[in-house]
This record gives sequence, C-alpha cells and structure tokens, in this order.
Amino acid sequence: MNYVMAALQLHMQGNDTVILKARGRAISHAVDVAEITRNRFLTEFEVKNIEIGTEVVENENRKSNVSAISITLGKKS
Amino acid sequence: MNYVMAALQLHMQGNDTVILKARGRAISHAVDVAEITRNRFLTEFEVKNIEIGTEVVENENRKSNVSAISITLGKKS
Repeated sequence: MNYVMAALQLHMQGNDTVILKARGRAISHAVDVAEITRNRFLTEFEVKNIEIGTEVVENENRKSNVSAISITLGKKS
Repeated sequence: MNYVMAALQLHMQGNDTVILKARGRAISHAVDVAEITRNRFLTEFEVKNIEIGTEVVENENRKSNVSAISITLGKKS
C-alpha cells in the first residue's frame, strides 16, 4: 500500500502522469499497484503505456540480467 | 526455461504471434520469459502489446482479486 500512497501523492501534487518502475520479482508488485491505484483510487486514470526491458545489475562483481517494467498511468482523455 | 521452450515450439509450429499470460507472482516470470525469448532465441520477434488487468479468483469459497498480464510477441514488421 505504501506505493499506492506514493502514487496518490504524486497525483495530488498536480502530476497528470504517474510512472511506476520495477525490476525482478517486484514486477508483479508494480502491476498490483497500478491495478489498485486505477481501480480504487484514481478511477479517472488509465494505463497509457507499458514497456518491458532487460537491465544489467552488478552484484558482488557479478553481472546479471534482470527484467524490468515501466507502467505509465495518466488521465483518461 | 520450460516456458521459453513452449514459446519456441509455438513459433516452430508456424505461429507468427505468441501470447504469454500470467497471474499474481508469476507476472515477473512471464516478463522474464518474454525478454529471454526475444533477446536470445526469436530475435526477429518484438513486443507487440502488453495488457494488465485484474481477475477474480475463488479459493476455498473466498473471492480475491489477482493482477494479470498478457504479453503479445510477434514478428518485427
């Protein structure tokens, strides 16, 4: 719920667009946040764009590929 | 990797489009499969569309909402 609150805060600061980004296992969490935000709180918002990609993360001198997602929520036009 | 193999098999059967669907925590896994498939195996494929939504799942007479994703991979045009 903390992320939902953060998204609401961004909205209340006057932003017409909220972008949610996550990597790895947090991806499913980002989708939850997008769905809860748009279904329960910001019902005038909709999913404008979703992108997926791969990022290289360095852990203890090892490089590994991690999937990433970017979900853009914006006001219904 | 089993899901990547399944996606490859669908491709080899002559399908120009492969749709990956997942719910809940498996969402991040579906993104991994899409990324691995298009980066390593079917490099002529790209992400055509991504949709997210909420599905109602019934467990032991309880209904709960679960996030879902649908990723469409298709040949680059």
